[in-house]
Amino acid sequence: MTANSPLEAYIEQCKQRVEAALDQRLPAETTLPAHLHQAMRYSCLNGGKRVRPLLVYASGQALGLPLDSLDGPACAIELVHVYSLVHDDLPAMDDDDLRRNRPTCHKAFDEATAILVGDALQTLAFQVLCCDPKIPADAETRLAMVETLARASGSRGMAGGQAIDLQAVGQELNLAELENLHIHKTGALIRAAVRMGAQLSSNASKTQVSHLDRYAKCIGLAFQIQDDILDVEGDPKTLGKTKGKDLAQEKPTYPSIMGLKEAKEKASGLIEEALKNLEIFSDEADSLRWIANYIIDRTY
Amino acid sequence: MTANSPLEAYIEQCKQRVEAALDQRLPAETTLPAHLHQAMRYSCLNGGKRVRPLLVYASGQALGLPLDSLDGPACAIELVHVYSLVHDDLPAMDDDDLRRNRPTCHKAFDEATAILVGDALQTLAFQVLCCDPKIPADAETRLAMVETLARASGSRGMAGGQAIDLQAVGQELNLAELENLHIHKTGALIRAAVRMGAQLSSNASKTQVSHLDRYAKCIGLAFQIQDDILDVEGDPKTLGKTKGKDLAQEKPTYPSIMGLKEAKEKASGLIEEALKNLEIFSDEADSLRWIANYIIDRTY
Repeated sequence: MTANSPLEAYIEQCKQRVEAALDQRLPAETTLPAHLHQAMRYSCLNGGKRVRPLLVYASGQALGLPLDSLDGPACAIELVHVYSLVHDDLPAMDDDDLRRNRPTCHKAFDEATAILVGDALQTLAFQVLCCDPKIPADAETRLAMVETLARASGSRGMAGGQAIDLQAVGQELNLAELENLHIHKTGALIRAAVRMGAQLSSNASKTQVSHLDRYAKCIGLAFQIQDDILDVEGDPKTLGKTKGKDLAQEKPTYPSIMGLKEAKEKASGLIEEALKNLEIFSDEADSLRWIANYIIDRTY
Repeated sequence: MTANSPLEAYIEQCKQRVEAALDQRLPAETTLPAHLHQAMRYSCLNGGKRVRPLLVYASGQALGLPLDSLDGPACAIELVHVYSLVHDDLPAMDDDDLRRNRPTCHKAFDEATAILVGDALQTLAFQVLCCDPKIPADAETRLAMVETLARASGSRGMAGGQAIDLQAVGQELNLAELENLHIHKTGALIRAAVRMGAQLSSNASKTQVSHLDRYAKCIGLAFQIQDDILDVEGDPKTLGKTKGKDLAQEKPTYPSIMGLKEAKEKASGLIEEALKNLEIFSDEADSLRWIANYIIDRTY
């Protein structure tokens, strides 16, 4: 990726949009209880990768929506993602001290606060989706987006994936079991991001929606495989988190089950399939195409 | 309260309704991930007091709604309440081993599971409110109920109250500060329960809604004062939790700030005010009247 590639500019634009959208929707640091609101803002406003918001924007854009109409859903899905990171980092879960080169929420504040931060961020996600006046959607569309987000993040989605992950530590998983884990843990929310972008468009055809969904399924899995690869190969400085952590915790990963070369091939194959599903779209879907390629090119 | 008082029969009926409603809406114990779903069901289906669902039923009933139309909102608010209990009981928060005479979720399962149980129960609450086909409400009404629940449970409601509570341990609070704590920690959700029952009724007048809201504010505070009184006076067996816990943790309480007698008088005064706000209602509001009296008569 060159310094001023269209993707880089696009990512930067979306990051700034969602950063501003989060900033506007999170209570101010001075709003009581200030300690909790400071910790919520600390956890959210830290220049994360914003992959899920990016997908909301790019998916909506592929169906002709203007970017500013997508700020609300982009913000909501990132709030759910951040809540899950804050809780996953807790000592009773993954016990991580570092996230994006900064102390994790329970390290910068305390465990009890981190639990409440996650809880309150989840609540805010649903509140934004339901009540944010800037989302140009009728009540039915809002409810459809809430349904998508709730199904993707609940016990049969992301939270369920985290539960499967916890049970998998120290276990031998086969490929199907590992895939099931990731379909829930990260795949569900990535699919929800693409779906929410599409749901906001009133004129998406069924075929378009199902192609977008298959695209999302492929890149979701590829994203996780690349994460596993980076845990082996990545530079901790660029990564912003501890390297070799999965290995140390005896977590099953794609490289550990398939081998590194095969894992890379699988990721590439999934990206190819993702791109095929975009062939019915015009160049309005270019952002989705860029993102697919970015997922396996990224180094952090 | 006599053995077969109308209130007792009413409470029993509502408890059975919400127990069945929760049972239907929680994933089965065999649904994967089974461990998580078992823990969710363990935490929810345990014959709790169900005060918030009771209030949803009674408030809707005061406006002429049939009980079965209120199962969904009753269920949603109890899911939020239970999620908050599961998280509050965690070692990093109140560190409680016993809840309703049974091991708390993190004791019966483990801490990581308890964190995920709380997370997934919150998600389910919003999912029920938005998507449950049995709720006889249009999309606008559902969104209004989601807004009520989100505002009441987020960082400026219940979760915020819990944050204030954590900061208050070992601190000297004055009466206004203690009241602010409880208005958030328990009051917000109690008001939301009454409001959601009213929101489902399409023909409630503004006056009726504001009277119900004042009723809810009064009983919410009275409920908390009575909790504090029971922590001093209650029988641990009936209470189902450790007695004197607040005192041992140096938590400020109404009896510790005002004295026991004054705390009891304050609770009675609030119940009187609550009842006054119901004078504009017919005998359809009798359940609300019973509940107000029950709050300060209860021994657990």
